[in-house]
Amino acid sequence: MNSMKLRVKDMDIATGDIQIVILNEKDAHELDLHPMDRLVVKKGSRSTIAILDIAESKKAVPPGHVGFFEETLDAINAKNGDIVHLDIAEKPESVVYIKRKLDGFRLTEKELATIVNDIVGNKLTDIELTSFVIATYTRGMHRSEIIALTKAMANSGEKLTFGKYPVVDFHSIGGVPGNRTTMLVVPILVAAGCIVPKTSSRAITSPAGTADTMEVLAPVSLPISKLKKIINEVGGFMVWGGAVNLAPADDKIIRIEHPLSIDAEGQMLASIMAKKYCVGATHLLMEIPIGPGSKVADKHKAKHLARHFGELGNALGIKMKTLITDGSQPIGNGIGPVLEARDVIWALKCSGCAPQDLVNKSIWMAGILLEFAGKAKKGKGEATARRLLTTGAAFGAMTRMVEAQGGKIPDPEKLAPAKHSYILEARKSGTIKSIDNLIIAKAARLAGAPIDPDAGIYLVKHTGETIKKGEPILTIHARSKHKIDYAIKTINEHAVIIG
Amino acid sequence: MNSMKLRVKDMDIATGDIQIVILNEKDAHELDLHPMDRLVVKKGSRSTIAILDIAESKKAVPPGHVGFFEETLDAINAKNGDIVHLDIAEKPESVVYIKRKLDGFRLTEKELATIVNDIVGNKLTDIELTSFVIATYTRGMHRSEIIALTKAMANSGEKLTFGKYPVVDFHSIGGVPGNRTTMLVVPILVAAGCIVPKTSSRAITSPAGTADTMEVLAPVSLPISKLKKIINEVGGFMVWGGAVNLAPADDKIIRIEHPLSIDAEGQMLASIMAKKYCVGATHLLMEIPIGPGSKVADKHKAKHLARHFGELGNALGIKMKTLITDGSQPIGNGIGPVLEARDVIWALKCSGCAPQDLVNKSIWMAGILLEFAGKAKKGKGEATARRLLTTGAAFGAMTRMVEAQGGKIPDPEKLAPAKHSYILEARKSGTIKSIDNLIIAKAARLAGAPIDPDAGIYLVKHTGETIKKGEPILTIHARSKHKIDYAIKTINEHAVIIG
Repeated sequence: MNSMKLRVKDMDIATGDIQIVILNEKDAHELDLHPMDRLVVKKGSRSTIAILDIAESKKAVPPGHVGFFEETLDAINAKNGDIVHLDIAEKPESVVYIKRKLDGFRLTEKELATIVNDIVGNKLTDIELTSFVIATYTRGMHRSEIIALTKAMANSGEKLTFGKYPVVDFHSIGGVPGNRTTMLVVPILVAAGCIVPKTSSRAITSPAGTADTMEVLAPVSLPISKLKKIINEVGGFMVWGGAVNLAPADDKIIRIEHPLSIDAEGQMLASIMAKKYCVGATHLLMEIPIGPGSKVADKHKAKHLARHFGELGNALGIKMKTLITDGSQPIGNGIGPVLEARDVIWALKCSGCAPQDLVNKSIWMAGILLEFAGKAKKGKGEATARRLLTTGAAFGAMTRMVEAQGGKIPDPEKLAPAKHSYILEARKSGTIKSIDNLIIAKAARLAGAPIDPDAGIYLVKHTGETIKKGEPILTIHARSKHKIDYAIKTINEHAVIIG
Repeated sequence: MNSMKLRVKDMDIATGDIQIVILNEKDAHELDLHPMDRLVVKKGSRSTIAILDIAESKKAVPPGHVGFFEETLDAINAKNGDIVHLDIAEKPESVVYIKRKLDGFRLTEKELATIVNDIVGNKLTDIELTSFVIATYTRGMHRSEIIALTKAMANSGEKLTFGKYPVVDFHSIGGVPGNRTTMLVVPILVAAGCIVPKTSSRAITSPAGTADTMEVLAPVSLPISKLKKIINEVGGFMVWGGAVNLAPADDKIIRIEHPLSIDAEGQMLASIMAKKYCVGATHLLMEIPIGPGSKVADKHKAKHLARHFGELGNALGIKMKTLITDGSQPIGNGIGPVLEARDVIWALKCSGCAPQDLVNKSIWMAGILLEFAGKAKKGKGEATARRLLTTGAAFGAMTRMVEAQGGKIPDPEKLAPAKHSYILEARKSGTIKSIDNLIIAKAARLAGAPIDPDAGIYLVKHTGETIKKGEPILTIHARSKHKIDYAIKTINEHAVIIG
């Protein structure tokens, strides 16, 4: 088959990710093309790889035309009626390397870079991409492969470079509801003169990610040119990583891991560290919370991860500290974007309403980073951090960041939770023995968080506190009675244990 | 989401395998459904699992309607305008077991049966199915898993049972062009009174499969009721396995293995043996040809496979012999369906035109099976087989089989190859040192085989024969000059080496 000219028909259908084109069966037959063949589609200088489906009637796609799904239109910026060129796609070079990994060979830097570029360029089918992800999971990855994968992922997308020092970053492996320390640690560091280009994720299975909570205060999807300007003027930002196109292979790999709930260690290390490398971090604090329901279940696993993060940071020239923390219960009171944002502002304003567990954990971590980045003397980090918070310096830094991103810090009293609510009361007096992260997170999601930002849960009591029969343990907030009911059903007898 | 009633719109689009349904974005939004969600679609008592795409306009799919691709229509026998029910599909139970295999656990008989049933029921996405296939490839399979997988594959499709004895079967691992021994061995066995329910494959990457060659003589896609009748009346048949729905998980697994050219040993053993188990074989001869270009490269690997086949046969109650043969050059003269069929008929008619290598190999293997099945005394098998061939008894059996399948044996002189031809002549005198299976197979395919059944290659000389400069080595046959040229380009200096 030689390159073939065809007219685009917009099918008005979206797959969510996979790029599809459709030929009439007559054209397909003449070109000896079959369903699932992989084609290169070109318009001008743009091209993409798409999978072929076949139209069995002229009505679906007439001969001489090629039906485009939305993802294919977007990829080459085509529209209905455009003329495009079609060719059979060569099997991507990376398929040979994926096969090598399947067969237990160690991949080279060049081979991993080729695979990552083919992933980012949408050149691999689900079968090929899954084979790669599963092979790295079942075969494991050698240290040299993880370093190469990290660099390849970093090089496959945008990079932020500021030419300033120290560039401080902070990452939590996650899994603990309400753990919004980032939104206090970042302003403290910025107030101390650190450069803090913080990119965060949105919630996937949790009631709020840092990006969702920050979005209550300011836009979080900003162009890179704007981010550079903010760093120069303010010293830090907090934005959604998904809008920055850092290490874009990551999302495509996560889509494969998600259905089987696998979290291939090599991939996870590489995807986190690639993003830190892309923002030019010089100093990085990695928090690994442990406890039932958080992502890392025990201290042994946490130490193993900490060692690997350290080695990888070393190889990438990033100074690193890892911190294993208690992830056994939610941190802070609010769970859900608006409720968490309110906690954060109360804390920055040193209000009596601020959850002290969140404040203290944030000061502790900010203190470590201040010493690490040379902004506080050894042993004085925590005191420096506390002073930056209590003097209002951190609140000032937050105000400048929020305004630079195009937002405005509201009066926390005006950050009202969703109007329907339900108070869960203690059925007996005693001490709170445990609060189940997974159940609380699930209930907050059923109440509507993060899609309804003002929905969620407000914890009145924490583990270790005493409570009397009939006193409130927590409040559920939602936009409808219906969603309240869903959330209530989930809060069973294991959610909060009083002993 | 509760079950939702929608009206089917036939989209007239085929994916080749994956089942797709499309909802208007308005309906999808109301039901909180997203692209790639997995849905159960029901019509009456039939149901299937399909993947959701989203229509972005009323033109593609109006609200209240659900767009069906061809594979989904076929799966539940629906047509345009039908009312169907949609539900969110629960994640299939087998996903948990696939995860267990990924994590290195040994799967039980029940777990493997669940996976195979979900594969056959189209309940797994490409990501999940690929994860399973790759996990069995990289982790390997324990003997108990291979036995369980074989039984599960056999139980997931149709079974042929005849209540007769001995039921003799024969299988070649393949990879050798022209190796059409099956079409001589089967009639010899039938002539000797064996029951021979032979299912074969079509060519995937070769110029002809046994099913393609048999189809030159008779229809090869027959219903099971007809096959039972033929066994009762004639004692044997040779049909295309794909039409019988034996071990239907196999094709779905092969589709995953194909892009990465993997041939997971456990899967391969299970898929071959499941089909033999399904036809009720009591005696099975397994041929493993070795040599460069054939599927098994060396004797060590062949012996390893032979041992595993033996163990599996033992566990399934099938008496087995394995035979490691020379796969270093093509067997027979014709390569391509018509040319191979002509060789076979010449051989059955004991014509001087019959390729003696094919005749001798077939008699040797038929002899082994005759002794094995108790139809010849020890040491007398080969002589018995030769007598059944030379007396015309095998030709009679073939005639009865072909006619029972609805065909007729033509005069071999009328089996004309495609009209365009090219004779490859020796560029020097000498002895033929080697003939390259892969190059010959590729050239025959480029000439048009098996899609043009009369296209292919006819070998005039074999390895070890002497040849004079200018004498013909082989003839290429094709339906167009164009295809001849393609084939000639492939026959390079390594195809036939004269020393």
